[in-house]
Amino acid sequence: MTVPDFGFELIGTDRTARRGRVTTAHGTIETPAFMPVGTAGTVKGLTPEAVAETGAEILLGNTYHLMLRPTAERVDRMGGLHRFMNWPKPILTDSGGFQVMSLNSLREMTEKGVTFRSHLDGSKHELTPERSIDIQRMLDADITMVLDECTPHPATREQTASSMALSMRWAARSKQAFVRRPGYGLFGIVQGGIYIDLRHQSVAALTGIGFDGYAVGGLAVGEGQEIMFQVLDGTLPALPEDRPRYLMGVGTPSDLVGAVQRGIDMFDCVMPTRSGRTAQGFTRRGKVNLRNARHQDDPRPLDAECRCSACRSYSRAYLHHLFRSEEMLGPILLTWHNLTYYQDLMAGLRQAIAAKGLDDFAAAFYEAQALGDIPAL
Amino acid sequence: MTVPDFGFELIGTDRTARRGRVTTAHGTIETPAFMPVGTAGTVKGLTPEAVAETGAEILLGNTYHLMLRPTAERVDRMGGLHRFMNWPKPILTDSGGFQVMSLNSLREMTEKGVTFRSHLDGSKHELTPERSIDIQRMLDADITMVLDECTPHPATREQTASSMALSMRWAARSKQAFVRRPGYGLFGIVQGGIYIDLRHQSVAALTGIGFDGYAVGGLAVGEGQEIMFQVLDGTLPALPEDRPRYLMGVGTPSDLVGAVQRGIDMFDCVMPTRSGRTAQGFTRRGKVNLRNARHQDDPRPLDAECRCSACRSYSRAYLHHLFRSEEMLGPILLTWHNLTYYQDLMAGLRQAIAAKGLDDFAAAFYEAQALGDIPAL
Repeated sequence: MTVPDFGFELIGTDRTARRGRVTTAHGTIETPAFMPVGTAGTVKGLTPEAVAETGAEILLGNTYHLMLRPTAERVDRMGGLHRFMNWPKPILTDSGGFQVMSLNSLREMTEKGVTFRSHLDGSKHELTPERSIDIQRMLDADITMVLDECTPHPATREQTASSMALSMRWAARSKQAFVRRPGYGLFGIVQGGIYIDLRHQSVAALTGIGFDGYAVGGLAVGEGQEIMFQVLDGTLPALPEDRPRYLMGVGTPSDLVGAVQRGIDMFDCVMPTRSGRTAQGFTRRGKVNLRNARHQDDPRPLDAECRCSACRSYSRAYLHHLFRSEEMLGPILLTWHNLTYYQDLMAGLRQAIAAKGLDDFAAAFYEAQALGDIPAL
Repeated sequence: MTVPDFGFELIGTDRTARRGRVTTAHGTIETPAFMPVGTAGTVKGLTPEAVAETGAEILLGNTYHLMLRPTAERVDRMGGLHRFMNWPKPILTDSGGFQVMSLNSLREMTEKGVTFRSHLDGSKHELTPERSIDIQRMLDADITMVLDECTPHPATREQTASSMALSMRWAARSKQAFVRRPGYGLFGIVQGGIYIDLRHQSVAALTGIGFDGYAVGGLAVGEGQEIMFQVLDGTLPALPEDRPRYLMGVGTPSDLVGAVQRGIDMFDCVMPTRSGRTAQGFTRRGKVNLRNARHQDDPRPLDAECRCSACRSYSRAYLHHLFRSEEMLGPILLTWHNLTYYQDLMAGLRQAIAAKGLDDFAAAFYEAQALGDIPAL
């Protein structure tokens, strides 16, 4: 079997929204796509079979966690992350940069990269653009992300510009370090905070270097949905049409709908999985807290329109009981549901774009969400 | 569809060992059988589909936990435990007595029954033979257990005799309270500690009352395997051949093999599930601690002969990583494996009895267990 080259095909558009397909060494991804987060080599609480059943075609793995445990070298010796975690489909890994910045307080930044101590055993580690690319190669990521500095919010224009410039120098070094293999791609990351002209400078720098895809970074860090959408409105038209666009770490269902309308192709977020572990269920009529006593005698499924196991076979009363009893099956079933909800939302968006009916789809989405949960019995 | 009557068919024997079939309202159970424990309406960490895939044909539910949360009344309103937890096959419930004694320190025993306060909300509850039977009816258990007093070990002959006598009076009241329905059965529990003559008195009392099956209680409470087997040797010949025999709360794989050789038909134990959550895996070559560093680079499955998902698709290195990272998937996969191991052991015992080759099977079992785990790579 010959491995297809990494690529992106634009299948259709509806105004600025895009329906596409990413081809990788481990399979294709229909876009717009949502990537569940498999932090430490597992989507918390689910078998890979269950993750695939939700409709997910690609997972995200966290370089920071994996480099510390079990280590990239060990994953490499075990045949790569796909084989290690039994997920034969595509995997995207982040660069590790964001989590070093947000999770590790014992770090030191220089032009060269960032050094830090492991929170697990105190061992010293260095993350440079070159090292991050090499780690992601050992993990066998289909999509590798460049190392960047995630500019904090709020930041002044000067701080943002200087941070973005560093990220662009790191992007050039990342490209240099990336060893091209058939079916494997490297994505650059647009920075520039809330300053559209800096975003344009960043796009120009990245497209000058040339990447297989372009991520928008530094959003969903507290600026709010309206500003995030403004930044997308200002930035996305500058990106090449023939490359996938990935909005990192986003977001809520309405974030996804709005970002798809503006032309984003890929997303990742811990929201459906983390919420699933804390009794927060996403439904076509908004978010539901299953610990709430109103569910304790409710024989109805969480979301009657959902095709997932949790909704087909269990009542709200049972899910409520599992969370109150702190039983593992609660997080398992609700993570399963939330990921199914997210994947079905993406499938709906893809169909709507293909049918050039995205505005109607979005209107119906917001209308249903505004209804709020079904009334208690 | 007419519901078959509750019954037991003795299909074959090999010396004192028995191959049989229990018929209940929710299906049949091939014996000797092992029942996974679904304490609070869930086998911890597994979906019912996964539990069924291990080969389990019947689950045990804990009356004590369920009566406190979500309450038997609520389970009843939700259509019974099978429907509530999405387990359409047979369920056996215990009486709640053992767990009131072992888990609840705010209890008071009288001839009538036991009163106690809930550890969840301080509410006051009474567990009498009649109330226990009624709770188990609301849970819709295919097999109901009589309320008994589990005699502590060690206990003097006098303490044991007096406790056993109380249990026999409660057994008579339980039989009186049990409302017979097609496909539903009531089991008595033989007590008498390590005193064979007291065990015989207990058997005589119970068979005088008449039950659909007979459990042996008060074992595996610290007396050791040798004494447990002696009690079985002394007790089982006194039990009627045409009723199933259930050894409560037992046990290790070698406990199961020895007890089946002596004529036990049914078992329950938290060992495979609890061990699965604490990184202890059962294999054909004994117990393995997956947190041990020797596994961190081992690409081999936990048990190469095992058909379970965990052994077919994952390495010891991956399972080790999951437990070290405290990922839910570790307990999930290892519980799945351990239950599969237990079910396959029971299937092997059933086949061996049918082929009248149980002694050879047991010899091969002990030989493999004595080998110890495969050497590190």
